[in-house]
Amino acid sequence: MSHEQHQQLLNVLHECMEACNHCYNACLQEDDIKMMADCIRLDRECADICGYLEQAISRGTPFVPELASVCAKICEACGNECKKHDHDHCQACAEACLKCAEECKKVA
Amino acid sequence: MSHEQHQQLLNVLHECMEACNHCYNACLQEDDIKMMADCIRLDRECADICGYLEQAISRGTPFVPELASVCAKICEACGNECKKHDHDHCQACAEACLKCAEECKKVA
Amino acid sequence: MSHEQHQQLLNVLHECMEACNHCYNACLQEDDIKMMADCIRLDRECADICGYLEQAISRGTPFVPELASVCAKICEACGNECKKHDHDHCQACAEACLKCAEECKKVA
Amino acid sequence: MSHEQHQQLLNVLHECMEACNHCYNACLQEDDIKMMADCIRLDRECADICGYLEQAISRGTPFVPELASVCAKICEACGNECKKHDHDHCQACAEACLKCAEECKKVA
Repeated sequence: MSHEQHQQLLNVLHECMEACNHCYNACLQEDDIKMMADCIRLDRECADICGYLEQAISRGTPFVPELASVCAKICEACGNECKKHDHDHCQACAEACLKCAEECKKVA
Repeated sequence: MSHEQHQQLLNVLHECMEACNHCYNACLQEDDIKMMADCIRLDRECADICGYLEQAISRGTPFVPELASVCAKICEACGNECKKHDHDHCQACAEACLKCAEECKKVA
Repeated sequence: MSHEQHQQLLNVLHECMEACNHCYNACLQEDDIKMMADCIRLDRECADICGYLEQAISRGTPFVPELASVCAKICEACGNECKKHDHDHCQACAEACLKCAEECKKVA
Repeated sequence: MSHEQHQQLLNVLHECMEACNHCYNACLQEDDIKMMADCIRLDRECADICGYLEQAISRGTPFVPELASVCAKICEACGNECKKHDHDHCQACAEACLKCAEECKKVA
């Protein structure tokens, strides 16, 4: 992984973590929260793994490919769930997740 | 902190983390999920800080009192919210949280 | 994953996390710390992923197989490094890691 | 906390997490690693709490003041340790930590 790729991945992971947590927070305040249960659950899964991978990359973990591979899968699942919902926070989150999944796949 | 206190605290933190995550998972499947939004949110806060403190204690962190103090506060907030709800998972979680808050205060 | 398997895995992950953090803490106090650098690094990697997987399983994550697969790989790497060193904490850690790697592979 | 303060704090926490993990990684490769043991330990403590607080703020935790207060204390301890060492990564880490401690105190 080049230094540039590394920094690009860290940025995308960070944006994805923030988008997921923002979506999580907003979903918990929606009137149709019943419909958002899977979204809330996946937002937490995705924010947590993105934060984890950020930490791991920045400490020089030897396991970037393995961790990025599972992160890609979780980002994809979260992005696909978010895409189903019209809320702005869901659409923004879907975009961040799917972008992050692509970046993760490049190093997986 | 004696070795016994240390092990007792680790056990209680672990039970609290599991109870909070179990309650979180169950709340997301309840029909009255709208009423459970604060419970879901606090379950995550509490599970995360308990897991964090477990990790920190087991690696010999020099910051047990400071971390235990904030953990006690979060456990208390989560326990008080859970107490309001009749679901078994909420009542079990309330008990685990309030017990954990007490243990944390002893070392804070 | 049966309820029994689930509980067994949680226990083994927890023991591994504690053994890794104990080894990390002890390695940092060894006279031959220079020789322990890889052990310190892998102890952290392994304690963190085991703690992460514990949290994830206990909140009902849909990604157990993927996370357990990466956890198995990290446990194996940490166990193999620890096995090289004669310190009691390294030998105990190696045992916990290799046992945890086996359990993780069963659900991966 | 205003939106500006919030974003400023997230940025500073993130820089501090990266600086601590970079310092941790570099310390583990130094010839004088024996002298760096406290630095390695505190780098991990500080990177972990900064990453935790970032996650917590971005999900709208109700516990910003309590968490920021403990984070300030850990950042300060890590910054003061790093300041003692001439390595560039230690000096850079000290600066990031002490800046982060200041920002945390503003919301504590």
